[in-house]
Amino acid sequence: MAGKDSDKGKNKEAKKEKQVKNEVVHGKKKEVKKETGLGLSYKKDENFGEWYSEVVVTGEMIEYYDISGCYILRPWAMSIWEILQTFFDAEIKKMKIKNTYFPLFVSPAVLQKEKDHIEGFAPEVAWVTKSGESDLEVPIAIRPTSETAMYPYFSKWIRGHRDLPLRLNQWCNVVRWEFSNPTPFIRSREFLWQEGHTAFATKEEADVEVLEILELYRRIYEEFLAVPVSKGKKSELEKFAGGLYTTTVEAFIPNTGRGIQGATSHCLGQNFAKMFEINFENEKGEKAMVWQNSWGYTTRTIGVMIMTHGDDKGLVLPPKVATTQVIVIPVPYKDANTQGIYDACAATVKTLNESGIRAEADFRDNYSPGWKYSHWEMKGVPLRIEIGPKDLANNQVRAVRRDNGAKTDIPVANLAEQVKHVLDSIQQNLFETAKQKREACVQVVKTWDEFTEALSQKKLILAPWCDEEDVEKDVKTRTRGEMGAAKTLCSPFDQPELPEGTLCFASGKPAKKWTYWGRSY
Amino acid sequence: MAGKDSDKGKNKEAKKEKQVKNEVVHGKKKEVKKETGLGLSYKKDENFGEWYSEVVVTGEMIEYYDISGCYILRPWAMSIWEILQTFFDAEIKKMKIKNTYFPLFVSPAVLQKEKDHIEGFAPEVAWVTKSGESDLEVPIAIRPTSETAMYPYFSKWIRGHRDLPLRLNQWCNVVRWEFSNPTPFIRSREFLWQEGHTAFATKEEADVEVLEILELYRRIYEEFLAVPVSKGKKSELEKFAGGLYTTTVEAFIPNTGRGIQGATSHCLGQNFAKMFEINFENEKGEKAMVWQNSWGYTTRTIGVMIMTHGDDKGLVLPPKVATTQVIVIPVPYKDANTQGIYDACAATVKTLNESGIRAEADFRDNYSPGWKYSHWEMKGVPLRIEIGPKDLANNQVRAVRRDNGAKTDIPVANLAEQVKHVLDSIQQNLFETAKQKREACVQVVKTWDEFTEALSQKKLILAPWCDEEDVEKDVKTRTRGEMGAAKTLCSPFDQPELPEGTLCFASGKPAKKWTYWGRSY
Repeated sequence: MAGKDSDKGKNKEAKKEKQVKNEVVHGKKKEVKKETGLGLSYKKDENFGEWYSEVVVTGEMIEYYDISGCYILRPWAMSIWEILQTFFDAEIKKMKIKNTYFPLFVSPAVLQKEKDHIEGFAPEVAWVTKSGESDLEVPIAIRPTSETAMYPYFSKWIRGHRDLPLRLNQWCNVVRWEFSNPTPFIRSREFLWQEGHTAFATKEEADVEVLEILELYRRIYEEFLAVPVSKGKKSELEKFAGGLYTTTVEAFIPNTGRGIQGATSHCLGQNFAKMFEINFENEKGEKAMVWQNSWGYTTRTIGVMIMTHGDDKGLVLPPKVATTQVIVIPVPYKDANTQGIYDACAATVKTLNESGIRAEADFRDNYSPGWKYSHWEMKGVPLRIEIGPKDLANNQVRAVRRDNGAKTDIPVANLAEQVKHVLDSIQQNLFETAKQKREACVQVVKTWDEFTEALSQKKLILAPWCDEEDVEKDVKTRTRGEMGAAKTLCSPFDQPELPEGTLCFASGKPAKKWTYWGRSY
Repeated sequence: MAGKDSDKGKNKEAKKEKQVKNEVVHGKKKEVKKETGLGLSYKKDENFGEWYSEVVVTGEMIEYYDISGCYILRPWAMSIWEILQTFFDAEIKKMKIKNTYFPLFVSPAVLQKEKDHIEGFAPEVAWVTKSGESDLEVPIAIRPTSETAMYPYFSKWIRGHRDLPLRLNQWCNVVRWEFSNPTPFIRSREFLWQEGHTAFATKEEADVEVLEILELYRRIYEEFLAVPVSKGKKSELEKFAGGLYTTTVEAFIPNTGRGIQGATSHCLGQNFAKMFEINFENEKGEKAMVWQNSWGYTTRTIGVMIMTHGDDKGLVLPPKVATTQVIVIPVPYKDANTQGIYDACAATVKTLNESGIRAEADFRDNYSPGWKYSHWEMKGVPLRIEIGPKDLANNQVRAVRRDNGAKTDIPVANLAEQVKHVLDSIQQNLFETAKQKREACVQVVKTWDEFTEALSQKKLILAPWCDEEDVEKDVKTRTRGEMGAAKTLCSPFDQPELPEGTLCFASGKPAKKWTYWGRSY
């Protein structure tokens, strides 16, 4: 459901994976090359792919696994997922959407019922054919998404208009056995997500929900992950297989000049309803067909956040999603009052915790303060508080921001209040900075030459388009190459003015809308 | 991890499943035979297996799925799972256990590393051999449990004593492709659970955790689900494959006279540590091996609750796990003030919600109050509140308990307080009643004849035992039959006195402990 990207010539981020894999598979316990906190060997601006592969591991978000394309989500990543989950789950419960759990397995009969849908997913479906030593009578698919698993039961449960709307969601794992370059969080063979599946009596109600959910996705990216996104509509070529239309929140990674589909909210129309006979008796006693939506966001969110904010020192976590928002580090000095410093650190954590700030102290005695600074910078903790003899004497703490390195002294007297203020400011600054970087990449083009030029400069291209499927296919063909082809990312809801007579940059036909184009993940 | 039960001649609860399956697979929308709220066709005491299969569907906990042994968890069941999850997750976080997520897939190389372990699980492992149209180079297993998936990385992450303890947990699905009678919640091919995996420097620390977790499992059953359990230790034959010892909370279903393993907390000892080379440098600088635990509880908990409390009217949910604790039903009457009654219902819900009670009103106008009573009884809502003209006039509501049918009038003035009190009383009554029923089933036996007699009477047998594996095997052989063989359930921690010279009921050798025996799920 998180969309099917069709071109896949990408960075070579799988190299590191192999290396780690070999270590583990062969059961040898080789010397670890990089201990956490000793810095990154790649720079974000020089070698983005390697930098990313390194930072997710060194920042302890991911461990590479001995099956290619599968990754271990370590607690540092899971805690972010849990924060996003808590937010989203509460919001959809307010909307009266209920959680359910459908099986992991899908029988081939139902999987293949919707033609377009299965065409989109078939090449990536993993099949179970054996249990123990025995062959199964019929191979069984592992869900790549659950439309076909769920809708036979929608048909069963929905009888009359009073059974509508039916609004379900599930938190689960799905499997898409892709063979092109796997990338932690961004493109993996198994990932975690939520998938919402709803049915309404009218298209109007379905349309409203599509946008309500999309707004929650925008909030996840912009308010929580501090990642700017564009809301928009996917082209016919890029929409969800079997659906009516797809809306998306689209992010952009300046370093690679690639768009990335952040999360999608689809109106399925009545296509699946037809295939699965999801009918109901309406208020007039007539037989009618439901209108359906499906929508999902995945652990990809975390990868987009890392790519957006991370730097050469490691991860940079927005305060709203950081499990540890503040790390408190004692800085003892020879003859100084060490116990007093430790006590002040503990008191600081207590004060902050009591104000709802997630703070922790690092009291380990086998690491120097300097090592700890690097370590927590690598892990992206938004704010560091140092307490040394001078701070103790002056009844203050020193606060150092992860986002911009700025240092301030905060009096103990109004610690919690000021720390809250700083955290808010970090959250906002991360978003504003990312937004400026993104905006600096937007290039408006009107001709094919401008388009190819902007593409080679890794721009996020906004172009007038005739909205014809064949033209998009043609653009793909003409831009195919080592870096992957360009395609539409979305047509933003927020449309600039389109003067009468504007022509499509690619076909020269009359343009119907502004559309974002670019390479994508 | 939720243990491997070895004998499986059970009730035939799969009949209904086939029926429903055919309806769905063939895509036909046949007339539904039973609408919710029209009552059950089987009685719990007369035909337990059929009653259970019916009540889980009619109570809207489960929908049978078109793959045998897989079930849909509907919102009414998922909300219970979520309540248990919220409790347990918060408790383990207090213990500094962190959530993680390991892949669904396990490579054959690591899966087969621990011999006893894989022997226990191999026959039930589901294998992925194809993706799309292509055969995989090497078949890949779906996790039946994650010891072997995780421990290569424990080996990688643990270097020195400061890396210990390592305490991880994950919430996920697992697959065990069993071929014997599947039963919703109780025995299914895929289920949801949490699995904790921890490593310590010393056995003492591991031992402590095993019991701390077991206590949380006891609380889930006794405090939340109102199901009495015995804490105890599994025999060598019944312990977790590859572990050192297994502790369990063991429930009992009087209707079938079967024990049921509620949840298990294992000390793995150093066996896996040896296989996976999980070593560390201890404080003296010497190389040492970790001590490990693993522990899990599953959606089976919900099935045990249903079996324990359900009755001929449907489900009976303990208030602590009921999403809807109170259902408010307007009872309008001809000329009476209907609007006033509806307003009073809404006000009642509001008052209760504000006091933290999960209440809802059923305002549907196409069902009679009587139909609604049956419907919500079927769904097991603990307390029903009816408001009619007389109640309105007297400034009171009528409250009807689901557990015992008792009716009381509650003045509106202290509504929330009294409702809270009644809910507490229901919770306690369910537990006490279940405990009495269980205790009435316990039979102390000292001889083989007493044992077989008690077994035929579906008793929970407490017998002195020599604790020898061969003797347990022998008991199994001698009791094998249509109903399944008897085996040890657990040796309770709470041991009655064992007078010197007491002999084993089965072998005549000196008894070492009291042990629960019986047939089991």
